[in-house]
Amino acid sequence: MMEKCRLVFSGSGGQGIITAAILLAEAAVLHEGLNAVQSQSYGAQARGGAARSDVIIWDKPVYYPKVIQPNVLVCLTQTAYNKYHPTIRPGGLLITDTALVKVDKSAEARLAWLPFQDQIKQEMGNARGLNICVLGAVAALTQIVSIPSLESAVAGRFDERFREANLKALHMGIALGSQRSSASV
Amino acid sequence: MMEKCRLVFSGSGGQGIITAAILLAEAAVLHEGLNAVQSQSYGAQARGGAARSDVIIWDKPVYYPKVIQPNVLVCLTQTAYNKYHPTIRPGGLLITDTALVKVDKSAEARLAWLPFQDQIKQEMGNARGLNICVLGAVAALTQIVSIPSLESAVAGRFDERFREANLKALHMGIALGSQRSSASV
Repeated sequence: MMEKCRLVFSGSGGQGIITAAILLAEAAVLHEGLNAVQSQSYGAQARGGAARSDVIIWDKPVYYPKVIQPNVLVCLTQTAYNKYHPTIRPGGLLITDTALVKVDKSAEARLAWLPFQDQIKQEMGNARGLNICVLGAVAALTQIVSIPSLESAVAGRFDERFREANLKALHMGIALGSQRSSASV
Repeated sequence: MMEKCRLVFSGSGGQGIITAAILLAEAAVLHEGLNAVQSQSYGAQARGGAARSDVIIWDKPVYYPKVIQPNVLVCLTQTAYNKYHPTIRPGGLLITDTALVKVDKSAEARLAWLPFQDQIKQEMGNARGLNICVLGAVAALTQIVSIPSLESAVAGRFDERFREANLKALHMGIALGSQRSSASV
């Protein structure tokens, strides 16, 4: 029996948080035969530049689309980390960025604190693709969707001018997540 | 007191349904100071090519992000129309396309049956921008967000190569919706 996977992607507007969440949901549903709901709540925090997107993936129908306590929490700003890391389930997985977030290691969660932004900037020359890179790490670390499923979702999302760069970002994230997942915590 | 506005955008994958819903939510929140939630459920119907996105906009916090009975229903395929038009609230508004959907006029809703796709194809040479055109009509017909708010959201979404075409599509939709809303039902 599959455990219900509750993910929260958090960061700031413009980082492509929502796109990452939608692509994960699409990969799960269209290519893995699972069910998914994906939602955004917008309010005062969005006017301050914050972005958050929730995804729930399960092999049964999912009715309530918001995540209270995530199994998997992605934080791409310090503000998002400070706000959401207390909500992660004990034993959950926190995925965050070495350049963007200073972590407090007392959280009762596995930690994947990885240099997404540094690597993206080094390889791409700017921070575009950060969201897709992180998405690759989410897949490598959680195995909630297969890599070919995610490649299909990403390839289908971007037209040919951007496809190759995004697939490259995805594979950078998969490599980062794979290294992390084989290391001791 | 503002009435809670529950919208469902429905159609097929690739029509940009989700993007339209997100842009409407962003316009409401970032530029109108309202609250919004926006969600997608994916499941068996998505594997058949169907797409649906829900948006709730209100001046109070919104907790439950799914729409059961929409006030405003957008249908861009016959399948979506057949499935969802029975769910519209009495007195609600149905927005659909003359080329894509044959309507059964017995629905207890106001009907905006407009030539979005024909006009987009005629002006743009292909069906890209259909989602943004429909979004313009939603704004003109419902006045849930102002036109400048929606222009800002659309302009912020697309990089400069695509911005002008999308703003043009938006204004085509606003014109279609404005004509319709001033006509007798």
